[in-house]
Amino acid sequence: MKILIVGAHGTLGRAIAANLGARHTLVTAGRNSGDVRMNLRDKATLAAGLAQVGPVDAIISAAGKLAFAPLLEMTEEQWRTGLEDKLMGQVNLALLGVPYLRDGGSITLTTGILSHQPIRTGTSATLVNRAVEGFVFAAATELPRGIRINAVSPGLLSESAVQGAAMFPGFEPVAEARAALAFQRSVEGGETGQTFAVY
Amino acid sequence: MKILIVGAHGTLGRAIAANLGARHTLVTAGRNSGDVRMNLRDKATLAAGLAQVGPVDAIISAAGKLAFAPLLEMTEEQWRTGLEDKLMGQVNLALLGVPYLRDGGSITLTTGILSHQPIRTGTSATLVNRAVEGFVFAAATELPRGIRINAVSPGLLSESAVQGAAMFPGFEPVAEARAALAFQRSVEGGETGQTFAVY
Repeated sequence: MKILIVGAHGTLGRAIAANLGARHTLVTAGRNSGDVRMNLRDKATLAAGLAQVGPVDAIISAAGKLAFAPLLEMTEEQWRTGLEDKLMGQVNLALLGVPYLRDGGSITLTTGILSHQPIRTGTSATLVNRAVEGFVFAAATELPRGIRINAVSPGLLSESAVQGAAMFPGFEPVAEARAALAFQRSVEGGETGQTFAVY
Repeated sequence: MKILIVGAHGTLGRAIAANLGARHTLVTAGRNSGDVRMNLRDKATLAAGLAQVGPVDAIISAAGKLAFAPLLEMTEEQWRTGLEDKLMGQVNLALLGVPYLRDGGSITLTTGILSHQPIRTGTSATLVNRAVEGFVFAAATELPRGIRINAVSPGLLSESAVQGAAMFPGFEPVAEARAALAFQRSVEGGETGQTFAVY
């Protein structure tokens, strides 16, 4: 398969690439690195990047910015970061990507454990992750040509666990390679409309 | 209790008012009617309305616009309607309302069955409803002074069932008075961070 990975050079993206790269042809995308430049918050870069890459069998997003702050101190711009980047950035990538996906292709987006296990300062993350999971769940009923769509919800990644320890008290770190398995399952398996939790 | 109901003159709002009005003092709000004028999509009207109403024991939202369209035909403005009105409108109402809530007061927002039972043309509704449920779930961990927050997720309301029959094939209508019970439970009960499904 030919697989586009957006956010391929992040902690999660590298683990996904290590897994899928063993069997598939990868095209990497990122804000500042990769075969093509794509910024989730800038729809024009998504459209241009997809056109540059051409037909693919799978599109993976391992990207998406969120802002963290005490609930009553969140600014409009902090709410907007999650809504425009991790939420609508991934929605736009998925919808703009449909015409480039071959029949039976797949889309896999990323959410995270905060969907269902909240932390202080993380309300925007919970809101956005749940919204992405809802998008995937409903979109699966309308995608054409056998195109599938799923999300992966990883726990706190091992590499982020040291710096994130204070924000995520008592959260058990998840090895990146375990999270990558869920992306493999979404791409190579047959399910659609699902969120694969890895924690 | 003194209870502010936003969207008090809609199908759901009237049923909530009939239930709670028997035991409490209601202040009604709406875009075009009610004791105060509030439009979820216009943050300034929320701030002004709350200031006009003053201290309250409960804030209820039975409002929120969504746009419905085939997934691949959704326009940016249609996505924005749900994000700015039903999602961030309710989030803004809740957060702006905190200073006006007495100790131990409550906030109750509205989502809907599409959170977990999708229909064609309803992806924005699923996305938005899940996001509101995530907001409520996480915000409950950070609200001060014993303030509680919940959501109610009603099924297809009886009054909407005839006109909505084609969009909601085979969905069992829910009597408005049943949905109103869940708002009573949120306001008069002790739970927080919950979504009460009524279907």
